[in-house]
Amino acid sequence: MKRAIYPGSFDPITVGHIDIIQRVAGLFDELIVLVANSTSKKYLFSIDERKQLITDSLIDPKIKVESYEGLLADYARDHNAHIIVRGIRAVSDFEYEMTMANMNKKLNENLETVTVFADPNLNYISSSIIKEIAKLGGDLTTLTPPNVHEALVKKFNKGNN
Amino acid sequence: MKRAIYPGSFDPITVGHIDIIQRVAGLFDELIVLVANSTSKKYLFSIDERKQLITDSLIDPKIKVESYEGLLADYARDHNAHIIVRGIRAVSDFEYEMTMANMNKKLNENLETVTVFADPNLNYISSSIIKEIAKLGGDLTTLTPPNVHEALVKKFNKGNN
Amino acid sequence: MKRAIYPGSFDPITVGHIDIIQRVAGLFDELIVLVANSTSKKYLFSIDERKQLITDSLIDPKIKVESYEGLLADYARDHNAHIIVRGIRAVSDFEYEMTMANMNKKLNENLETVTVFADPNLNYISSSIIKEIAKLGGDLTTLTPPNVHEALVKKFNKGNN
Amino acid sequence: MKRAIYPGSFDPITVGHIDIIQRVAGLFDELIVLVANSTSKKYLFSIDERKQLITDSLIDPKIKVESYEGLLADYARDHNAHIIVRGIRAVSDFEYEMTMANMNKKLNENLETVTVFADPNLNYISSSIIKEIAKLGGDLTTLTPPNVHEALVKKFNKGNN
Amino acid sequence: MKRAIYPGSFDPITVGHIDIIQRVAGLFDELIVLVANSTSKKYLFSIDERKQLITDSLIDPKIKVESYEGLLADYARDHNAHIIVRGIRAVSDFEYEMTMANMNKKLNENLETVTVFADPNLNYISSSIIKEIAKLGGDLTTLTPPNVHEALVKKFNKGNN
Amino acid sequence: MKRAIYPGSFDPITVGHIDIIQRVAGLFDELIVLVANSTSKKYLFSIDERKQLITDSLIDPKIKVESYEGLLADYARDHNAHIIVRGIRAVSDFEYEMTMANMNKKLNENLETVTVFADPNLNYISSSIIKEIAKLGGDLTTLTPPNVHEALVKKFNKGNN
Repeated sequence: MKRAIYPGSFDPITVGHIDIIQRVAGLFDELIVLVANSTSKKYLFSIDERKQLITDSLIDPKIKVESYEGLLADYARDHNAHIIVRGIRAVSDFEYEMTMANMNKKLNENLETVTVFADPNLNYISSSIIKEIAKLGGDLTTLTPPNVHEALVKKFNKGNN
Repeated sequence: MKRAIYPGSFDPITVGHIDIIQRVAGLFDELIVLVANSTSKKYLFSIDERKQLITDSLIDPKIKVESYEGLLADYARDHNAHIIVRGIRAVSDFEYEMTMANMNKKLNENLETVTVFADPNLNYISSSIIKEIAKLGGDLTTLTPPNVHEALVKKFNKGNN
Repeated sequence: MKRAIYPGSFDPITVGHIDIIQRVAGLFDELIVLVANSTSKKYLFSIDERKQLITDSLIDPKIKVESYEGLLADYARDHNAHIIVRGIRAVSDFEYEMTMANMNKKLNENLETVTVFADPNLNYISSSIIKEIAKLGGDLTTLTPPNVHEALVKKFNKGNN
Repeated sequence: MKRAIYPGSFDPITVGHIDIIQRVAGLFDELIVLVANSTSKKYLFSIDERKQLITDSLIDPKIKVESYEGLLADYARDHNAHIIVRGIRAVSDFEYEMTMANMNKKLNENLETVTVFADPNLNYISSSIIKEIAKLGGDLTTLTPPNVHEALVKKFNKGNN
Repeated sequence: MKRAIYPGSFDPITVGHIDIIQRVAGLFDELIVLVANSTSKKYLFSIDERKQLITDSLIDPKIKVESYEGLLADYARDHNAHIIVRGIRAVSDFEYEMTMANMNKKLNENLETVTVFADPNLNYISSSIIKEIAKLGGDLTTLTPPNVHEALVKKFNKGNN
Repeated sequence: MKRAIYPGSFDPITVGHIDIIQRVAGLFDELIVLVANSTSKKYLFSIDERKQLITDSLIDPKIKVESYEGLLADYARDHNAHIIVRGIRAVSDFEYEMTMANMNKKLNENLETVTVFADPNLNYISSSIIKEIAKLGGDLTTLTPPNVHEALVKKFNKGNN
C-alpha cells in the first residue's frame, strides 16, 4: 500500500493546502495530513484546533489527520510511509524544500519527497498572510474556507477584548 | 488625478528610498509616502520620528508623508489611490512583492502595483543593514542622509548610556 | 504629457500582453505599444502582421501601435517618452528586465522603466509557448484572442501544405 | 491503475535520468519513459537510438519506453495517463517546469505534474554537458552508463573522420 | 602575505564549514576562521565553546581561530586582511552574500570577498538544521564531526533535565 | 606558486571583465586570462582579435593571455593551475557557475573554482549586450575600453558596407 504524508504547520489550513490535498490524494492509497507541533514555534491555533479545522475542511475517507512532535523522517519510518508530499509556490519555497528533502533522505533512505506546484490562482495565499489580514480586519470570505474564517474572527475578537 | 502610494516601514528612510521617491514622483500627480505602523513589529524609531526623518529628507510639494495601521488595500480605497509603487533590489524582494501585489489586488481590485528597480549603486543598502552598521559604530556618512545619520548616532549613543 | 512605451516582439500578441496593456494604459496619458523588428531575429509573423494583430486586439484610442528597428533608448528620446513599461512573470524575467532597465538608463538618463507583475492566471502564457502549441495542433481557443488564433491556424496550415 | 509519464529528450539518457526513474518507478503502477521527437529540435541521437539507449539502461518490466511527436497533454489523454513526472535540479528548471505544468493542466485538466529533486551528487549532470565533454574528449566513465559512453565515443569519432 | 578571513557564527561548526576551510586554506598564506559574537543574536554555544569546537576540528597550523564583536570591515583593516571567504549553497545565500560583499567593500575599499560553492553532498547541511535534528533526537553520526556531535548531545540532554 | 585561470569567451572583453581581472590579480602569483575557442560557437571577433583586445587592455606582467580549444579541466591540469576564477552578476550566472564548478571538480579533483561578485555599477554589462548596442549604433564611449570601442565600430561598419 502506498501511504504518503503531507506535513505542515497548518496554522490554519488554507485553500492552497486544500487544493494540494485534493490533487494528490488520488495518487496514493492513503494520505496522512500531518500537523507539526514544535515546542520552539508559537502557533495561533492549538494542535487540536488545527487538526479540527483540517478535519472539517475535508471529507475524503482516504485522508487521515494526525500530529507529531519529533523528526518527520522518524515518523515516516514508524508509520511505514515512504512518500512526503509538498506544494511549492515560489523559488524561495523550492530551495527550502530541496534542502529538507535531501536531509530527510539522509535521515531515512527510504523516504522520497515529491512536490506539486501551487495553483497560480492560490499562489499568494499562505497561513501567515491570512492571519495578518484577519488581524487587520480584512475581508477573508473568498480567501479561506468558512470554518477557518469563523475561527479566525473568533480568535482575533477574543484577543481584542 | 493619479495618486500613488509608496508604502514601507522607513525605519529609517535610506538613500535607496529617496532615490526611488525622486524617480517615481514625476510619474504621478501626487505621491503619498506611507509609513506602516504595525503593532506586531518592533521599530527603532517611533512613527513620528520616522515621518519626520522622511519629511526632512524631501522637499517636493507633490509628496505627502502619512502613516497607517490597517490594511494597505483599505487605505488606498479610502484615499482614492489606485497605484502602489515599490522598489525591487533582488530576487527575494521580487517574490515577496509579487505575492503582496496579487493579494492587494484580490483585496482591492482597483489597486495596481508598479515596481521600479533599485539603483545598482544603492542595491546593498537597506534600513536593517544601516541600523546594524550604526549599532557597531561604522561610518555612515556616505550611506545615509545627514539627518538620518545624526538620528542614528543619537539613538545608539542614548542606548549605550 | 506622460507618454509611456510598452516594447516587445509580440510574435504574436498574447492575452498576457493584452492584460498588461489594459492595466497600465490608465496610468499614462499615452501608451505606445512598440513592436521590435530586429534583423537578427526570426519572427513567425511579419512586422505588419504583428502590428495588425495588436491593433485588432485593442480599441483604446490612447494606445498607439508603432514599430522600430534601432535602440529602444534612442526611440524613446526621439519620441519624447520617458517611461518604459514591462510585465514580469518569473525570476528569470526579472533579472533580464533589471539588466535592460539599467542599460537603458545608462544610454538615456531620462528613461525610467516600471514593471508590473503578470496576472497569475496568465503567468504560463508566452508567445513562444503559444506558437509551439499551435504548431502541434493544440486547442488555443481559451489561450489567445480569436484573431490571433485564426492567424496562427492559417500560418501553420499554410506551412504544412 | 496509476500510469505516469516521464517525458524528455533523452539525448542521451544520463545517470541523472536513471536515478529519477528508479526513485519514482515504485510510486506508480506503470511508468512510461516518453521520448520527445520534435521536428524543430536537432538531436545528436536519432529517436530509435535514444529509445534503445534507455531500454538498455533499465530492466524494470513496469517501465515502458515510448516516443511521441505531438502535444504531451494529448498523448497523456490518449494513453489514459494522469501523471507527469519531472526532475528538478535548479531554480531555472523550477520556473520552466512550473510554466509547463500549468500549461499542461490548462490543455488537459486531468493531468497532474509531480516533481522530484535531482540527487545533489548528480545535480551538475545534463545531456548537453555530457555531449560537450564527449565532444572535447573528456573522460566520461563515471558520468554515464557504459552503453551511453560507448555510443557517444562512436558518434564523435565518426564525426571526426 | 595573503591573509584571508572566513567569518561566520559557527554555532556549531559543520562538516560543510570544514570542507570549505580545507578547500580554501591552500589558496592563502594564512586563514583566520573568525567567529562572530553579536550581542543581538542568541547562540546555542558560547563564544568559547564555538571556538573550541572549531579548534578541535582542524589541525592545519596555517588556520587561526579568532572572534570579534564589531564590524567585519573594521576587523579586516585592523588585522591587515584583504580577503573574505564565504561558501554559497543556494540562490538565497548568493543574494545575501552579494549584498554583504558590496557593503563591506563600501566600508573598506581594500576588502575583496571571494566565494566558493558548497560541496553538493553537503549542500543541505547548516548549523540550524543540525541543531534542530539534535533537539529532536535524530541521528547525527554522519552529519557532524564527533566532537560536535558529543557537544550537541550534552547541550540538549542538559537542557532536558 | 599559485596560478589561477580566468576563462571566458571575451567576445569582446568588457569593463566588467577588466574590473574582475584587476581585483583578483593580486590574490594569486599568476593569472592566466584564458580565451575559449569552441568550434561550435560563432564569435564576432577571431581568437587572435579577442586575445589582442585583452592584451591591449591590461598592463600587469603577472597576467598572461592564452587560448584553448579543449576541456578547461584538462588545460588546468596540463598547466599546473589549481584555481579557476569567475565573476557572477546574477542568479542565473550563479546556477550556471555552480554546475560548471562541480563538473570541473569531477573532471579534475584538484581544481577549485572561486567566484567574485561583479561590481554593481557594471552588473548590466556583458559582451552580448555591448555587441547588440554597437550593431544598432548606440553610444559605447562609457561602456567599453577605447580599443574595444574602435574594434566594434570597425567590425560593424565593415559589415554594413
